[in-house]
Amino acid sequence: MGSTSDLPVMQDAIDVLKELQIETEVDVVSAHRTPEKMFEFGKNAHNRNIAVVIAGAGGAAHLPGMVASLSPLPVIGVPVKSSNSIDGWDSVLSILQMPGGVPVATVALNGAKNAGILAAQIIGASDEVVRNRIIDYKESLKQKVTDAAASMKANG
Amino acid sequence: MGSTSDLPVMQDAIDVLKELQIETEVDVVSAHRTPEKMFEFGKNAHNRNIAVVIAGAGGAAHLPGMVASLSPLPVIGVPVKSSNSIDGWDSVLSILQMPGGVPVATVALNGAKNAGILAAQIIGASDEVVRNRIIDYKESLKQKVTDAAASMKANG
Amino acid sequence: MGSTSDLPVMQDAIDVLKELQIETEVDVVSAHRTPEKMFEFGKNAHNRNIAVVIAGAGGAAHLPGMVASLSPLPVIGVPVKSSNSIDGWDSVLSILQMPGGVPVATVALNGAKNAGILAAQIIGASDEVVRNRIIDYKESLKQKVTDAAASMKANG
Amino acid sequence: MGSTSDLPVMQDAIDVLKELQIETEVDVVSAHRTPEKMFEFGKNAHNRNIAVVIAGAGGAAHLPGMVASLSPLPVIGVPVKSSNSIDGWDSVLSILQMPGGVPVATVALNGAKNAGILAAQIIGASDEVVRNRIIDYKESLKQKVTDAAASMKANG
Amino acid sequence: MGSTSDLPVMQDAIDVLKELQIETEVDVVSAHRTPEKMFEFGKNAHNRNIAVVIAGAGGAAHLPGMVASLSPLPVIGVPVKSSNSIDGWDSVLSILQMPGGVPVATVALNGAKNAGILAAQIIGASDEVVRNRIIDYKESLKQKVTDAAASMKANG
Amino acid sequence: MGSTSDLPVMQDAIDVLKELQIETEVDVVSAHRTPEKMFEFGKNAHNRNIAVVIAGAGGAAHLPGMVASLSPLPVIGVPVKSSNSIDGWDSVLSILQMPGGVPVATVALNGAKNAGILAAQIIGASDEVVRNRIIDYKESLKQKVTDAAASMKANG
Amino acid sequence: MGSTSDLPVMQDAIDVLKELQIETEVDVVSAHRTPEKMFEFGKNAHNRNIAVVIAGAGGAAHLPGMVASLSPLPVIGVPVKSSNSIDGWDSVLSILQMPGGVPVATVALNGAKNAGILAAQIIGASDEVVRNRIIDYKESLKQKVTDAAASMKANG
Amino acid sequence: MGSTSDLPVMQDAIDVLKELQIETEVDVVSAHRTPEKMFEFGKNAHNRNIAVVIAGAGGAAHLPGMVASLSPLPVIGVPVKSSNSIDGWDSVLSILQMPGGVPVATVALNGAKNAGILAAQIIGASDEVVRNRIIDYKESLKQKVTDAAASMKANG
Repeated sequence: MGSTSDLPVMQDAIDVLKELQIETEVDVVSAHRTPEKMFEFGKNAHNRNIAVVIAGAGGAAHLPGMVASLSPLPVIGVPVKSSNSIDGWDSVLSILQMPGGVPVATVALNGAKNAGILAAQIIGASDEVVRNRIIDYKESLKQKVTDAAASMKANG
Repeated sequence: MGSTSDLPVMQDAIDVLKELQIETEVDVVSAHRTPEKMFEFGKNAHNRNIAVVIAGAGGAAHLPGMVASLSPLPVIGVPVKSSNSIDGWDSVLSILQMPGGVPVATVALNGAKNAGILAAQIIGASDEVVRNRIIDYKESLKQKVTDAAASMKANG
Repeated sequence: MGSTSDLPVMQDAIDVLKELQIETEVDVVSAHRTPEKMFEFGKNAHNRNIAVVIAGAGGAAHLPGMVASLSPLPVIGVPVKSSNSIDGWDSVLSILQMPGGVPVATVALNGAKNAGILAAQIIGASDEVVRNRIIDYKESLKQKVTDAAASMKANG
Repeated sequence: MGSTSDLPVMQDAIDVLKELQIETEVDVVSAHRTPEKMFEFGKNAHNRNIAVVIAGAGGAAHLPGMVASLSPLPVIGVPVKSSNSIDGWDSVLSILQMPGGVPVATVALNGAKNAGILAAQIIGASDEVVRNRIIDYKESLKQKVTDAAASMKANG
Repeated sequence: MGSTSDLPVMQDAIDVLKELQIETEVDVVSAHRTPEKMFEFGKNAHNRNIAVVIAGAGGAAHLPGMVASLSPLPVIGVPVKSSNSIDGWDSVLSILQMPGGVPVATVALNGAKNAGILAAQIIGASDEVVRNRIIDYKESLKQKVTDAAASMKANG
Repeated sequence: MGSTSDLPVMQDAIDVLKELQIETEVDVVSAHRTPEKMFEFGKNAHNRNIAVVIAGAGGAAHLPGMVASLSPLPVIGVPVKSSNSIDGWDSVLSILQMPGGVPVATVALNGAKNAGILAAQIIGASDEVVRNRIIDYKESLKQKVTDAAASMKANG
Repeated sequence: MGSTSDLPVMQDAIDVLKELQIETEVDVVSAHRTPEKMFEFGKNAHNRNIAVVIAGAGGAAHLPGMVASLSPLPVIGVPVKSSNSIDGWDSVLSILQMPGGVPVATVALNGAKNAGILAAQIIGASDEVVRNRIIDYKESLKQKVTDAAASMKANG
Repeated sequence: MGSTSDLPVMQDAIDVLKELQIETEVDVVSAHRTPEKMFEFGKNAHNRNIAVVIAGAGGAAHLPGMVASLSPLPVIGVPVKSSNSIDGWDSVLSILQMPGGVPVATVALNGAKNAGILAAQIIGASDEVVRNRIIDYKESLKQKVTDAAASMKANG
């Protein structure tokens, strides 16, 4: 993530990855304040046995796109609605609208939970154990809705 | 893709996947006009040895999100700027803003080329041969920029 | 509705339909978490003596459009301004901008009350008793404004 | 419709209603230039054996909402992207965002075809013959997609 | 104004008109709930010695434009940011974007104070006494800024 | 107007004022390139027997607001959609959103015709001859719609 | 700044300029309420040994652009998100979208801190002592991120 | 600039800098395709006797912000409206909305000419010869408007 102020949002990714039993490394790397660290990270991530990168940032959010430019790994971008953001549009557009050649897999505004699930799905694309956890996870979502519907009807 | 009218945009994904030597299956599946076919496809894709799904659609674009709801595979969504779209905002927001639990890896408006590269990166997360092709591909992008800069300077 | 979190908004539809004496069935059906239930519902609604469907959902709101794709009944869509919505634009556009062939009758953001009235008007299109209730309802709106204006003037 | 300049858009509604064999009356009624005619029309439509009103207008589009305020019938609003419109947002928002009590069933920008289908679905809510035509119509959409997919595959 | 809920905003117009000693009539007239009263008002205002109409409304705000269509008087429109408004865009665009032939003099979102001043300026266009009050009013604005600047400097 | 490039849009105001027989003075005054001329104009307009000012400008359009700050006369602002404008939003918002104390009577994007009519209505607020021309003008609009409707019906 | 209500935002510029030891003059100059003072200021600033002007304003924010039109100095504009602003878009666009010939160096919404740093960078363009303070300042930003990352890891 | 496709827009900056006799270096540096070259450039620019950097880019435009993060020099950002841009909003917001600490002096969409003038103004902040050229340049703008106004009047 680009700043510790993004932690309340990004925690959702950490939590769901834990729930899906995916090993996770968490760090603060700022595109604008620690560009050298970001460079170092981006250039070497794929040599450090990392499979997927999740990068969250707000405002003119350059971290996801810059890591994507430096790394051959799939990079998931989480637009964070920071204070002074213009309703989140700045974060969304500066992550989503990457030029041809350098994709960022963008999720919803503040959608860190979905970033975690998407990372697990990417690993599950070649790892059947992880994919089955995804299948179970989706089943549990279904169950929650069914339970909520039943409880709502019970309460009239 | 949701309609054959999306083909001019989606062709970029097919082309780059061919260039990166990733086997590809192309079909037209409309969330709104062939919902049963979409259901069938989404439910079974992971059993048919498919690793990643790319879904492109325009307007109120439900295809990527619905396939993501039906499949445990990573789904890449391409917002297509269709005629009568409100400047593409409808396609972007109805693909990007998925609720917690069901991510779609969204790329830029009309960004089918990036969808293809992202699909290759996802496969490359566990396949070093593909990842090396990505590294070579990025090197070729760099070369093109360097050449263009040199040619611009040569021409004053 | 797509989630029990939509209930505070959707309750307005339930209330006004009760006031207009229209029989109502309320359920939680999530396009993304219970797609099979949605399929079942959409395919069979017109065989279960249902005349109109009201579907409310937020964010990338696919429920109204997907039910409209599955059912020959008129479907009314209520864009719900969910948390993490981008000011409601996502809900509005992903319900409103349906492709040619599959309409959703969209009402205002959080406009569940109007969805209820519209459902009654649709029934009233062929049922004079219901239409007369609509006429009375509109008369009561007029009376409220007239009373408020009179009270404002009385209070200077 | 509010102006003859809306005819190229609104013709789609006329055509699909003809295809679905729904009797149609077409007129130009301007909220801003012929308000008395609009008043007359809105007040009396339900006494003239009309079941549904389709009103299309662009810019600050007041026709659909004003007819809805004057008539107990369901009113379908078609936002038309007129010249000098701000990308269609003005038409969409001034039709969609009606206050509580006076709904307009809004369809997509320039979505006159869907307005026609929705009108037929509203009539079909109580008329099984019309509903079956809707079912057939949807079947024909499916067939077109299936044919297009087959033809695309045949052409490689 | 279109609803008593607009009063907190519209009070600014009443106050500034009082300050500028312009005689004022205040009423609630809803385009959508009391269309007949609006018609009556719009058709007759210029015969009742009224010089300018100020109309405030929110959401799909049709009151200013409809009065403008019914009356030869200059009509000032105040977009009110109502609850469930989409950030005020709906009010602004449905008042501002009137078609050729029927202008509404639109002021800023919630800008009722400016509507009052503009009304006085319109009267002042032919009435030198009122115009001089405007000149004095502007002078007082200048004085307030000068005083505030001086006080800020005094406080360091 | 702020630039001769605004003339094609602003010509509509000149034409309708001629049609309504209002004496008109046309000049190019740029807030950003000829600020002294603008100052001179704004400070003295009300002493030169001018009743209303129409100011059209595009982009960050400061002319209408600056003239309004300098003059006690009513100022009508025409947002012009210039090249490189961001869809006209810049012109609209920098004219409409004036602070409390300094109103600009804003008309639709490129709505110079309505600016001319509004200027006539302002003069007509105290001049019955001009007001009657407005009444006739509105009658002619009505006639045009009625004729167009009749001709459309005649042509099937 | 255009109003004392902008002070809470603009204070960030004053603070960072103090930290970077740049001499600063603070005043309230309103484009719309004290246009003569603004004129005076803009015309003479470059003769008063001022190197850079920072102008902050909200809504239809004309102060930065008008000072830029009057002065040959670089002018930095700070869009302030005032109450009744439409999400800040009005301030941003009326400062940013200046016509060719009259630039304003625009920073982020409420970005007064960055305006201060940019002013120091402009002075540092020709003053190595100031530039070195910028280099130190940026180093301190880096250190803060590094410390925050370390502290986050220490806290698990 | 980030791509040779930005040249038609960026040429305006080159031209005006030539006109103002400022020495200029032009290069293509892509944040996403040649990140190492950008790093090199950003880290060393201030040691190469460069006073100001102008960086133009489109879409998710990271070049201006990244150079600003790497260099203590003032960086001017030009949002370029590239093909597939969402009306230029992406370029504008990803350049403008930089976080506290790392400013980019942003000019209007496609406003390369203003970027050139602003660069000259920055140099002119400490160089009276350049400042006088700016004063002359502004005088020539004024003359052009005055001439255009005279010619318009001559032509009626």
